[in-house]
Amino acid sequence: MRFFSDNTATACPEILTALEGANRGLAKPYGEDEWTARLDGAFSAFFGTEARAFAVATGTAANSLSLATLSPPYGAIFAHQEAHIAVDECGAPGFFSGGAQLALLAGEHGRLEAAIFRAALGAYPPGDVHKVQPAALSITQATELGTCYRREPLAELCAIAHERGLKVHMDGARFANALAFLGCHPADITWRAGVDVLSFGATKNGALAAEAVVFFDPALVGDFELRRKRAGHLLSKSRYVAAQLLAYLETGVWRRNAGRANALAQAIGRAAGAALLHPVEANEVFVGLGAERRRALRAAGFEFYDWGPESAGDARFVASWDQPEGDVPALCEALGRS
Amino acid sequence: MRFFSDNTATACPEILTALEGANRGLAKPYGEDEWTARLDGAFSAFFGTEARAFAVATGTAANSLSLATLSPPYGAIFAHQEAHIAVDECGAPGFFSGGAQLALLAGEHGRLEAAIFRAALGAYPPGDVHKVQPAALSITQATELGTCYRREPLAELCAIAHERGLKVHMDGARFANALAFLGCHPADITWRAGVDVLSFGATKNGALAAEAVVFFDPALVGDFELRRKRAGHLLSKSRYVAAQLLAYLETGVWRRNAGRANALAQAIGRAAGAALLHPVEANEVFVGLGAERRRALRAAGFEFYDWGPESAGDARFVASWDQPEGDVPALCEALGRS
Amino acid sequence: MRFFSDNTATACPEILTALEGANRGLAKPYGEDEWTARLDGAFSAFFGTEARAFAVATGTAANSLSLATLSPPYGAIFAHQEAHIAVDECGAPGFFSGGAQLALLAGEHGRLEAAIFRAALGAYPPGDVHKVQPAALSITQATELGTCYRREPLAELCAIAHERGLKVHMDGARFANALAFLGCHPADITWRAGVDVLSFGATKNGALAAEAVVFFDPALVGDFELRRKRAGHLLSKSRYVAAQLLAYLETGVWRRNAGRANALAQAIGRAAGAALLHPVEANEVFVGLGAERRRALRAAGFEFYDWGPESAGDARFVASWDQPEGDVPALCEALGRS
Amino acid sequence: MRFFSDNTATACPEILTALEGANRGLAKPYGEDEWTARLDGAFSAFFGTEARAFAVATGTAANSLSLATLSPPYGAIFAHQEAHIAVDECGAPGFFSGGAQLALLAGEHGRLEAAIFRAALGAYPPGDVHKVQPAALSITQATELGTCYRREPLAELCAIAHERGLKVHMDGARFANALAFLGCHPADITWRAGVDVLSFGATKNGALAAEAVVFFDPALVGDFELRRKRAGHLLSKSRYVAAQLLAYLETGVWRRNAGRANALAQAIGRAAGAALLHPVEANEVFVGLGAERRRALRAAGFEFYDWGPESAGDARFVASWDQPEGDVPALCEALGRS
Repeated sequence: MRFFSDNTATACPEILTALEGANRGLAKPYGEDEWTARLDGAFSAFFGTEARAFAVATGTAANSLSLATLSPPYGAIFAHQEAHIAVDECGAPGFFSGGAQLALLAGEHGRLEAAIFRAALGAYPPGDVHKVQPAALSITQATELGTCYRREPLAELCAIAHERGLKVHMDGARFANALAFLGCHPADITWRAGVDVLSFGATKNGALAAEAVVFFDPALVGDFELRRKRAGHLLSKSRYVAAQLLAYLETGVWRRNAGRANALAQAIGRAAGAALLHPVEANEVFVGLGAERRRALRAAGFEFYDWGPESAGDARFVASWDQPEGDVPALCEALGRS
Repeated sequence: MRFFSDNTATACPEILTALEGANRGLAKPYGEDEWTARLDGAFSAFFGTEARAFAVATGTAANSLSLATLSPPYGAIFAHQEAHIAVDECGAPGFFSGGAQLALLAGEHGRLEAAIFRAALGAYPPGDVHKVQPAALSITQATELGTCYRREPLAELCAIAHERGLKVHMDGARFANALAFLGCHPADITWRAGVDVLSFGATKNGALAAEAVVFFDPALVGDFELRRKRAGHLLSKSRYVAAQLLAYLETGVWRRNAGRANALAQAIGRAAGAALLHPVEANEVFVGLGAERRRALRAAGFEFYDWGPESAGDARFVASWDQPEGDVPALCEALGRS
Repeated sequence: MRFFSDNTATACPEILTALEGANRGLAKPYGEDEWTARLDGAFSAFFGTEARAFAVATGTAANSLSLATLSPPYGAIFAHQEAHIAVDECGAPGFFSGGAQLALLAGEHGRLEAAIFRAALGAYPPGDVHKVQPAALSITQATELGTCYRREPLAELCAIAHERGLKVHMDGARFANALAFLGCHPADITWRAGVDVLSFGATKNGALAAEAVVFFDPALVGDFELRRKRAGHLLSKSRYVAAQLLAYLETGVWRRNAGRANALAQAIGRAAGAALLHPVEANEVFVGLGAERRRALRAAGFEFYDWGPESAGDARFVASWDQPEGDVPALCEALGRS
Repeated sequence: MRFFSDNTATACPEILTALEGANRGLAKPYGEDEWTARLDGAFSAFFGTEARAFAVATGTAANSLSLATLSPPYGAIFAHQEAHIAVDECGAPGFFSGGAQLALLAGEHGRLEAAIFRAALGAYPPGDVHKVQPAALSITQATELGTCYRREPLAELCAIAHERGLKVHMDGARFANALAFLGCHPADITWRAGVDVLSFGATKNGALAAEAVVFFDPALVGDFELRRKRAGHLLSKSRYVAAQLLAYLETGVWRRNAGRANALAQAIGRAAGAALLHPVEANEVFVGLGAERRRALRAAGFEFYDWGPESAGDARFVASWDQPEGDVPALCEALGRS
């Protein structure tokens, strides 16, 4: 029973159907196809504002291309110290930006905090040529610890960033899970709160390989398309990645899939009881098991990642949109028992 | 009737079947899946030698990751002045390598020539700290002008490179077309001739989005996997790209698809008659039409790219593996008539 | 009365004499001159081991070229969170290395601590392709807070680094000040403790513009010279920078100048009394003055930098080798009084 | 007798005097000193227009920082195939710009030609995301082959560049030699002709280590200062490099030194007779000697570089501003005789 990550999941039927539907006739390549032409409209409708949307195949590409568009090579990118861009992308932001420096911040339950961010900015006096130049704030929604930002704290972070001229990027690898949990309009936790660019994830939540970079201000697009091309992230048969994104948005599978995964995580979280480390607000559950219980659960057939320092004995369980029916009840029972 | 490029083509049924076949159950991500595990074996069998093969989604990624693995940031990469890496990838080799410089060479019909390459190397005396350091030779097979290298001239180029300590990369975006035309064993135009690393293209020839980087010397793999990850080219649901490559090799569609496209190009080439600019040895046909005939053909419903300087009036026609039945006869008739 | 920094200082007479001495006859350029030829020998004698030494004109160049030689673009470079490379070089390590990521660590009085470093390394499991790869540890001696590492804690840090395959870089912008304070042999706090590469500063301590990158293991030099050239840091009239370094070492001005600056700092530290923030072990003094006393001192004609967060009210005073005679007594008196 | 290059020369007395003059009292570092404060004015006066001037220590730094300011990482930089930035800086432009690609052009006697440049630009249709984006033209004055551009052809090249939105950089490592030869106002071959940014060399012509980057349009300065800092090219004791530049301009040594070197080169050129390969318009002389005469001259005590392909047997002689009195007559006699 696999709880490694939601990228162990399959692609959902609607996505495969969309691929097959796009698989007819010769189509212009490199984003000149008719599926890609519909992306801006579909994302604008979804977010309730005029947006520009660009398809890529991986979340790392979405994040790093966004950040390289927002930050010069001598820029500082502020992010939570647990952020995927900081700890799981092998230095991609530094690569894509040509050397931008991450300024990593603490914050409870994986969330950035306004006071900490404001203090960190204070170390960069405007006009100081000796320091990297604050350029972007990257916020993960849902966070790496399975929590969500509500609208107000999000808006406050964005406001602090904007005051100092920084742009705001959101890593939304699990954006659908956050949206399903919060039950708000997509606008509320993006452009209305001050987010400038969103890495909109679909892969983990039922696509095969499809992410969108969504610019809420078309003026920010800048040289994104050139950066995407030279990074090898402009797919030649671009219709297939666009078709996935269209299906993902338009059939509503984003909601159905995220809803199921979230609900499963809730159940696991309840079963974890007092050992639960962070509120369950998406599809990830962090549990302080200790070495012994981790061993026991693995012996019982559960697969999951250890989390944090070895000595802590913590574990992460991620529920996938297509998690087999019996997996979660079994896990809950085992957690309750162990 | 579209003759823009073979990346206007669809994915062939065998590829879609493979995607569906892989779409079952939770699988480990990031190249830890069982499909990816079979890549080395499949490519080793195909090439008749022990090879390491890594999947990516685009040809630019395959080329640039290969070159960045072979060349330091202060390296010189030798290539034909028409090479895709030089003129169609928005500077990707410079980006991935951290600044390596292209040393571009002339050569008839898109082919590098031993004497020119040797003379160019002469401008880089060993140990001269003021010059970029010759690091790699990149050869395109089939070339950008639809021609192929036979084994001997290929081996000679590789030998010159190896003498000076350069590694040899092959851009095989249309490798299957070259193989189908030459009718040789894949080994003959790769490792046996001296090629060290191959960008093995499948996308143009019937895959959805799948290319392999094939190392014929496992010792050369070096830090390729780290570079792939930090460039955002390690797909999380890696099984789907691996499944495409396995199907492409193992069902023989590479040969069937390339064979059909090549045969269509031969027909177009014959119809072009004296206006043919380069021998037709793959699925591309270059014709000196002049502005008037280009206009007439377009008016008659044929879509194709102009090629070279505007004043020359040349055109490129590419036959796709799934080119609709009537397209080529119609084009041939039009070419004969115009 | 200027206490901004020791780079406000002049060049000492011995350095100017050396420049004049080198200013005779046509000399081979780009490091082929006879002064440069003597660098390896002079530094080997100074450090009591076979070393390779390369001249550059700035400390940022020395640090970043060292680090780029030690770290791949996907490397992690561990350093103190106050390190010059982290906060005062506008992202130079990221630029020179092609994107390496800084992993910044806390530590009292500007010193790295073994337990913290060891724990930080624990977050990078060997072979994890998703993470930047631990490549180098950079230690500042004397530290940014005017303290020094003794031999044992230094050796422990180096040993931890080496165990995990990291190389150790020392930022010795104020190496002479540390040496003068500790009174040990230069070897004791470099190669004998495990330092692999040293940025040996001379500019702050009496040179005009001269720093050396010293490799204690010739095998580590690798591609340093190519990196220096392509970064524009190989001076054409290289004799002048080499001549400065030779005079700096061979006339003993390093010791005389550092000794005087350190002694002045000691006096300031004593005058600071309980407001002193860190032990004075080089030529920098950090004092918790508060806003009011900072204002008063400035009104009295003392120039210095504020340090740390505005709210803290801290100040940094740096004594230069050529600090005018009356400056320090005046400052001491003012500190005592205020 | 050394004719290797003009960077074998010493620094002239006026420069050393300026260094000594600047060597008094504590001065603000990092370009905040009073010498640096005078650079803009001095260069504005020299060029007869409002200019911004920034000091660096090497020509490679001046060129690459200029180009990185003008070109994005996906830019194309057009230059002559013999340009120093292309063949003698170990790939520095690619490094500083983050991957910009050089588009190298032929042209007689080291000079770019309008028709060739215009044709080359034709290969980059505006808005084509697959190609590097034409960003800058770099012109060397005097050229690498010792020739000069007159005002009109220079203005034509600049006009072509500006029409397509490119900026124009001039590599003026030997700008004084060109100016002395042409006898025009400095404005005539820079901003009045359309040059946007100039690498103004002083090192080869009598400075110790000093070059200026001169922006003729202050709006183009952009992020130059941040790029200089993070490349380690902002000298801490910046007064010394500024003082050199001020003395170089204000004492008129630029003219005296260049005048002498040019006159010596003229003499050598006349002695070369029919073997002269390029017009002598600065301080470099290229002679088709053949292997036998090269050997004979070396046996007679003359030091010089071979030039071009070994088989051609060409040689380069460079006259330095401080070339010892007897050297040139001796060389002329030997050339006449051999």
